[in-house]
Amino acid sequence: MPHDTALAELASFLGDRLARSKPEREAHGRSETWFPETPPDAVAYPETSAEVSRIISTCARLGCPVTAWGTGTSLEGHALAVRGGVSLDMSRMNRVLAIRAEDMQAIVQPGLTREALNSDLRATGLMFSVDPGADASLGGMAATRASGTTSVRYGTMRDNVMGLEVVLADGRVIRTGSGARKSSAGYDLTGLFVGSEGTLGIITELTLKLHGQPEAISAAVCAFDDFEAAVRTVIATIQMGIPMARIEFVDETGATVFNAANGTDLPEKPHLMVEFHGSELSAAEDAKRFGEIVAEMGGAHFDWATTTEDRNRLWKMRHGAYPACLAFRPGSMGLVTDICVPISRLAEAVRETRADIAESGLTGPIIGHVGDGNFHSVLLIERDNAAELKAAKALAHRMAERALRLGGTITGEHGVGMGKKDLMEMEHGAAWEVMARIKRALDPDGILNPGKVVEVSQ
Amino acid sequence: MPHDTALAELASFLGDRLARSKPEREAHGRSETWFPETPPDAVAYPETSAEVSRIISTCARLGCPVTAWGTGTSLEGHALAVRGGVSLDMSRMNRVLAIRAEDMQAIVQPGLTREALNSDLRATGLMFSVDPGADASLGGMAATRASGTTSVRYGTMRDNVMGLEVVLADGRVIRTGSGARKSSAGYDLTGLFVGSEGTLGIITELTLKLHGQPEAISAAVCAFDDFEAAVRTVIATIQMGIPMARIEFVDETGATVFNAANGTDLPEKPHLMVEFHGSELSAAEDAKRFGEIVAEMGGAHFDWATTTEDRNRLWKMRHGAYPACLAFRPGSMGLVTDICVPISRLAEAVRETRADIAESGLTGPIIGHVGDGNFHSVLLIERDNAAELKAAKALAHRMAERALRLGGTITGEHGVGMGKKDLMEMEHGAAWEVMARIKRALDPDGILNPGKVVEVSQ
Repeated sequence: MPHDTALAELASFLGDRLARSKPEREAHGRSETWFPETPPDAVAYPETSAEVSRIISTCARLGCPVTAWGTGTSLEGHALAVRGGVSLDMSRMNRVLAIRAEDMQAIVQPGLTREALNSDLRATGLMFSVDPGADASLGGMAATRASGTTSVRYGTMRDNVMGLEVVLADGRVIRTGSGARKSSAGYDLTGLFVGSEGTLGIITELTLKLHGQPEAISAAVCAFDDFEAAVRTVIATIQMGIPMARIEFVDETGATVFNAANGTDLPEKPHLMVEFHGSELSAAEDAKRFGEIVAEMGGAHFDWATTTEDRNRLWKMRHGAYPACLAFRPGSMGLVTDICVPISRLAEAVRETRADIAESGLTGPIIGHVGDGNFHSVLLIERDNAAELKAAKALAHRMAERALRLGGTITGEHGVGMGKKDLMEMEHGAAWEVMARIKRALDPDGILNPGKVVEVSQ
Repeated sequence: MPHDTALAELASFLGDRLARSKPEREAHGRSETWFPETPPDAVAYPETSAEVSRIISTCARLGCPVTAWGTGTSLEGHALAVRGGVSLDMSRMNRVLAIRAEDMQAIVQPGLTREALNSDLRATGLMFSVDPGADASLGGMAATRASGTTSVRYGTMRDNVMGLEVVLADGRVIRTGSGARKSSAGYDLTGLFVGSEGTLGIITELTLKLHGQPEAISAAVCAFDDFEAAVRTVIATIQMGIPMARIEFVDETGATVFNAANGTDLPEKPHLMVEFHGSELSAAEDAKRFGEIVAEMGGAHFDWATTTEDRNRLWKMRHGAYPACLAFRPGSMGLVTDICVPISRLAEAVRETRADIAESGLTGPIIGHVGDGNFHSVLLIERDNAAELKAAKALAHRMAERALRLGGTITGEHGVGMGKKDLMEMEHGAAWEVMARIKRALDPDGILNPGKVVEVSQ
């Protein structure tokens, strides 16, 4: 078996926290989407940073790849150990280490999930804002630079990670950032590790920015006769400077999928789902001004979710979009792809993508965080249908090309993983080689999540 | 003369845009503060990215250092060519290339200053928010990760630079970022170059985030009997979630300095200067709630700046703090240092620093962007008084140690430059060596602003 020496040495100090059974390996070889199963050679369950450091040192010395694993909810196969070696499952490092309410910060371990953190925060009046839908691990969210429904107001992981503890490829442990809200003290290493997908170091601790729980929340869902009116509403709202906490677009197919999964009766039309946070006065004012824009753009069926229960139902429906899509076509798997464009090109990007999906014959709702210019297609593929998979991949490729043509990016929030590495040179040109130089400088032996993000010859 | 071959080759294509006269060299060898004059061997004035690329290629081939120069307003000697070579004066690359109002973005050249950009933006209803006081160049502001009075609301350069064109140490030109508001497509190179102080590449174009000009503004200045009450007011305002656009602290000495320079009659007490941005309704509500907190904390002399003229006078006074300090002690020069701490430790940091300044016998107002936990001491030193300079340096060193002890950073916004390199290891430990590895990977021959930020053996 490959890497036997390394695995034996790891077992010597991890004991039964180094799992080599088939079911464990298979569970860490699967992703949420279409990628083929690629089980690692073993799964390690560290409990401390020192243990992570020892694992990495051992693996570095013996040439065994290490790929970190959070909750496995990534959509681009980031956590799959495509070159074998060890899957580093961080789920036992899931503690809240400190909540510094006065500084609006939390210090957490990477295996903690965002919902668990928010549950701990409930009584403090604070919240952690980044919300990718899935109850992902915070380490994984940082590693993939996750964002989600509330990023239009509170930012992505780039904006909400203040500092990190990271184990480097040689086993050394460093700290980046500080408890201060800003710094000019040298290169932004925190920002470099956030979004590096476990290829430059393993995150073992995070200092996160918290926000006050809003005093008042108003949320609504409204329908439009055509998607362009919905997009124009978003642009006008941004330009009026109305601070949206969430603004989500759902197309006709999405509305149909939601009705099927939730027993709702949304009109089968494009929708916007919005939320405003503020004082009683300002949230009401924002909602009123937004309502005026919607009316002007011809929106209708405007339903305010006034109670907490109504609001929870609304966002639960939105967060359940992916399983709802899979259930809509039984026996399917998803190829979920996202792009992000400047807001002025959003209507064009959605229009062309809709036409492209229609022509492909695939079922694929468009759902997105349109306040950021970011949207997803959930392409539903029959399992083992090579022709459909091929068509979906081609469609995703065209979406990425479209994003670049319109001045955007091949992925707003899902990351590179296995799905988008082949598109990186198209987006970055010579800058992609600069990324590879950084990878070689920090991980010269290519131990950390090899085969992802950059191309290095080794 | 050193680098004669390189300079001759540069002159062959730059003509009289390569200046070697003593006055030109001396003008690019001075900083705003106490650093000794270090003239470069020549000053180059490129007009295009291609020219920057050709200059860098030439210098790289012939081992001649290149240090970029914006407006020379940095406070830590960033732009001084401490190892000689060429000062790359970006002032001729000062055009606005595009204003994309719908996307709230501007594409600019690095030599453009922030006030020139805002003047161009006036009619669009948009503004560029980052405001370090000086009318600095936008390239310099990005390179030093500048921030300022409005960062508490709108963020620093880290948050407001969306993308860059950068000339690398080998002359290659790359682009980072995109026109999309977010991306997960690989390492955050934009974030890496922002704050790298010209040591990793030369910025030749920036895509900047713009914000809507606020519909309504309310500003005020108020006095407190003791600085702790002022700091408690800031903390309470943050925790109430009242969105401040600016919140500046000025101590008793600062008030005295302002009165002397501006003919005002501020009480000689600690002050807060604040500003709220929003709709008519929300700005008024924020101001009212802030007023309640001030009253509760025992603040007084609460003056609202209701007219635009009053507001301009207020912020002009604040922005003129540094020349006002120098004028306060004729014949002095400044050692200006800044630290940034978690807001919960701000009172402690200010208290200890005040005591330290008092004990040193130096005159040194404390002024700061306290909403970020960031404050400055302007230590006034008699020219050629070695004892005072030594005392000021020791005081600045103790401030940096204090910042780290309190969980903060040695510089919130002034950067490393010449003044803080010796403190970098104290803040970053092994992470400082990671910065050096990145420097070596991107600039193996140490051509770009050598001697700054990191320590590389060459």
